[in-house]
Amino acid sequence: MTHPLFAKHEDTLRNALAAIETRGYWSPFAEMPSPKVYGESSNAEGEAAFKAHLHQTFELDQPGSGQTVGAERSPYGFALDVRYSKADPDSLIAAARTAEDSWRRAGREAWVGVSLEILSRLNRASFEIAYSVMHTTGQAFMMAFQAGGPHAQDRALEAIAYAWAELRRVPPDAHWEKPQGKNPPLAMSKRYMIAPRGIGLVLGCCTFPTWNGYPGLFADLATGNAVIVKPHPGAILPLAITVRIAREVLREAGFDPNVVTLLATEGDDGPLVRQLAVRSEIKLIDFTGSTANGNWLEQHAHQAQVYTEKAGVNQIVIDSADDLKAVVRNIAFSLALYSGQMCTAPQNIYVPRAGIRTAEGHIAFDDVAAAIAGAVQKLVADPARAVEILGAIQNDGVVRRIGEARTLGRVLLESTPLEHPAFSEARVRTPLIVGLDARSDAAKFTTEWFGPIAFVVATDSTQHSLELAGSIAEQHGALTLSVYSTDEATIEAAHEAAIRGGVALSINLTGGVFVNQSAAFSDFHATGANPAANAALTDPAFVANRFRIVQSRMHVAPLGEAAQPGQTA
Amino acid sequence: MTHPLFAKHEDTLRNALAAIETRGYWSPFAEMPSPKVYGESSNAEGEAAFKAHLHQTFELDQPGSGQTVGAERSPYGFALDVRYSKADPDSLIAAARTAEDSWRRAGREAWVGVSLEILSRLNRASFEIAYSVMHTTGQAFMMAFQAGGPHAQDRALEAIAYAWAELRRVPPDAHWEKPQGKNPPLAMSKRYMIAPRGIGLVLGCCTFPTWNGYPGLFADLATGNAVIVKPHPGAILPLAITVRIAREVLREAGFDPNVVTLLATEGDDGPLVRQLAVRSEIKLIDFTGSTANGNWLEQHAHQAQVYTEKAGVNQIVIDSADDLKAVVRNIAFSLALYSGQMCTAPQNIYVPRAGIRTAEGHIAFDDVAAAIAGAVQKLVADPARAVEILGAIQNDGVVRRIGEARTLGRVLLESTPLEHPAFSEARVRTPLIVGLDARSDAAKFTTEWFGPIAFVVATDSTQHSLELAGSIAEQHGALTLSVYSTDEATIEAAHEAAIRGGVALSINLTGGVFVNQSAAFSDFHATGANPAANAALTDPAFVANRFRIVQSRMHVAPLGEAAQPGQTA
Repeated sequence: MTHPLFAKHEDTLRNALAAIETRGYWSPFAEMPSPKVYGESSNAEGEAAFKAHLHQTFELDQPGSGQTVGAERSPYGFALDVRYSKADPDSLIAAARTAEDSWRRAGREAWVGVSLEILSRLNRASFEIAYSVMHTTGQAFMMAFQAGGPHAQDRALEAIAYAWAELRRVPPDAHWEKPQGKNPPLAMSKRYMIAPRGIGLVLGCCTFPTWNGYPGLFADLATGNAVIVKPHPGAILPLAITVRIAREVLREAGFDPNVVTLLATEGDDGPLVRQLAVRSEIKLIDFTGSTANGNWLEQHAHQAQVYTEKAGVNQIVIDSADDLKAVVRNIAFSLALYSGQMCTAPQNIYVPRAGIRTAEGHIAFDDVAAAIAGAVQKLVADPARAVEILGAIQNDGVVRRIGEARTLGRVLLESTPLEHPAFSEARVRTPLIVGLDARSDAAKFTTEWFGPIAFVVATDSTQHSLELAGSIAEQHGALTLSVYSTDEATIEAAHEAAIRGGVALSINLTGGVFVNQSAAFSDFHATGANPAANAALTDPAFVANRFRIVQSRMHVAPLGEAAQPGQTA
Repeated sequence: MTHPLFAKHEDTLRNALAAIETRGYWSPFAEMPSPKVYGESSNAEGEAAFKAHLHQTFELDQPGSGQTVGAERSPYGFALDVRYSKADPDSLIAAARTAEDSWRRAGREAWVGVSLEILSRLNRASFEIAYSVMHTTGQAFMMAFQAGGPHAQDRALEAIAYAWAELRRVPPDAHWEKPQGKNPPLAMSKRYMIAPRGIGLVLGCCTFPTWNGYPGLFADLATGNAVIVKPHPGAILPLAITVRIAREVLREAGFDPNVVTLLATEGDDGPLVRQLAVRSEIKLIDFTGSTANGNWLEQHAHQAQVYTEKAGVNQIVIDSADDLKAVVRNIAFSLALYSGQMCTAPQNIYVPRAGIRTAEGHIAFDDVAAAIAGAVQKLVADPARAVEILGAIQNDGVVRRIGEARTLGRVLLESTPLEHPAFSEARVRTPLIVGLDARSDAAKFTTEWFGPIAFVVATDSTQHSLELAGSIAEQHGALTLSVYSTDEATIEAAHEAAIRGGVALSINLTGGVFVNQSAAFSDFHATGANPAANAALTDPAFVANRFRIVQSRMHVAPLGEAAQPGQTA
């Protein structure tokens, strides 16, 4: 008996399974906020739904304390003033423990079917979620829609597909029959049961709450676990909407909605998180955030499987180019996109001190640096256009970091505030570019400067650049590495640096793909092979440990006394 | 170009892949030490090869210090006096670092082909390894042959098959093409490279050095990692022979043999292991041994993926039986087999205080306990026959533990020394059985009493027995749970207890299968879901984290300026 929600979404699942094997382009969720796809009134309705949340208490019928929390502020300059029920972790754990029993018994088709149904409802809520993402993270609307909606849904579907690919490998039962020479065979009937790990804890971030939060959430759900979602206190609303939709679907499908609950917080929730993360009932933790917090979880939450994405130093190696203009145009967009607040945004740009070869001849280091700065300047020259790329700065810490970074070296491009045409109080800053030297400034560029901060670093040679790229990724972590070269051998050497650093490599991006971008079903986001992340989105390792197999066996035929069984089978 | 060793063993691999999916009976390695299979002179040659190791220095051309170590003693009463090169961990790590580069470049077919070739050579050495296992672990010859040889090889092949199943899911490359409406599509060529984690450390145990050591060793090798094998100081020889064969195959196949090295030790090697285990170069650790050491590794070796098998409390629940004689005969054999020194051997036998139902009517608790004790006594009555089941006691600590255990409660069956007909100095002891009460003795039976020690525990009811079984497995760990019942509902309740405890369940074993036995390709050994082990032999989770995927991407077609790419792909 196939679960009806599994049957409903089986085609989508089958296509997703094919996509993760072939890794070509595929997506079931339209990335353009088109009225033709999402409905004529979808944008207006989504915005209205978002606005209806403001200055209200977000209703969620889960165990609560009666008190409320919530202090989200839009980076576009206003308080959301959404209040959430203040949950007690003990009550949420108790509720999840109650809920997980019938959820476990429902079995793999129910887990996957319900997960896929939640996803299709989330897709319908893409505009509401987009506005919520925009006004918590500071992303411009287009990115908030795409990354917060369909692209996050793609990543969720990918995790579900990987989970199903592992789950379906376990046969529900087997017949085992071992020959015994002239005696009757030993015969047994075996049953293999999927045992979910327990309760998952998803710890969200303030820049991509859904994109980074969904893979863990859906990997947990699709393997039969209950989940407590603890958003970053600065970006609760997108995950609160998500949890509400998940609970609706669970309830409609006949399950205890406390399979998914929300733990909203305000202020410094570090102590609460650290207490919760080591609870024996918490068996899975998915975290996106700072290296300090991620390392703490890896080193203390021994009772759980811990999946982290932390800080890293993303790098670009410029060796040579056919068309430097196309190179710097592409780089400029990568630096400006969401003001460098993407975990994949480049920070260190290595250029040989002696300059580079191009189709138009040799170009000096200073001229390469100036070309990059010029391309960024051009990109942000028109504030109305610029804010649609830059978005807003998520928090004041990033603004302070820009101020600190400009003292590190020679400022090649100043960061300036921009006035947002629609939101006068928006916190908008253009990218800062600072010139450094690899010989003297290593301490400065081997840590992450999160935000619109980039360094053009003079190196001894491309070989030196690649050596830096590989070793910095290996030691300090990185999610992306980009190389520009017209030389085959250099591109192969860049592959070696990428392997050493355990980092994804992009080569000669000069067109409509940017190093910050990671396409679900095709690109692995992070590798798990360097300190920036201990897991990848998504590979088999991301899902295989979220459940266990418990088996039983019993004889199905009697045995002769004279059988000579092996002593350890 | 298929690697020749991959091509040579491809049929075996294909069969193994089918076996792990269907989980019926299958084994390519003959478990009976039959001259017809292994050759007329194989036994004599194997024994001679074993004896030739005695009082010699074991030659292994790996980096060494010039000094030697080794203090193995046969539990059958003599010193092996085999000396091994005393290796310096720094030199082994340096050698592995050098070796791993060309090993990585060789790629997945080479890793798997070489691993399978090593395995087929190990199979040919089964008799030599059997005698080495016998005279380090104390296993009787038949078990030493089966568990140390073909069954260990089966477990290795299973790990290789799981590794291949994961590796082959990663396509070497892909073409990605994303439509852009009326504009030309974005097109990219992508390459996916397998990045092994680094150096694996395999920490062997003194009871099943090959059976417990091979899965980690071969899972590491088959995913492209280098491996340092650190045997238990009491059982070096079987793994030394294994490493020598692995190195021979590597060298013949054109690789640096330091892909696999041996770290032999003597005395308390705890400090050395703890130092080595946290080295940044060690990325994978496979451990079988004590809970204290396993927990230490889990909590300190954060730079590595740690796979542990530790202590547990295995349990039998007796509810009712058609044929109590068959029940106690089966249990007696499980208790006697290798003197309870199997990690799967039962310890706690729960019987309701009020007795049980059988086909021959009600049987009182004392009579059930007496029947078990009687069956064991009968099994070990003839010393010549008994030693072929009991083997010898691996170390004096086990003998001391028997003495301690007999003070815990009412002795139902005394443990006595037996004279071995062939080895007069052999350390042989019959099983001890002690009667306990669940109400008053919980502290006594909730820890592992490793060795020939079993408790018959009076409980309030079968429900109470199952409650104990589930909660003790959950809290203290267990590898096996066995239930005897003629009642369908009780068997279902036992499944629930097994799920709660995360432990494999055997039902009504009265014939030629024993709860201690775990059949490769069909039975999962351990679950990873309770404190007895954090991993299972073997499931996808056991292999999926042993490698990472590093990708690259580059454009393969130019893009129009007007393209409107998504902002996060």
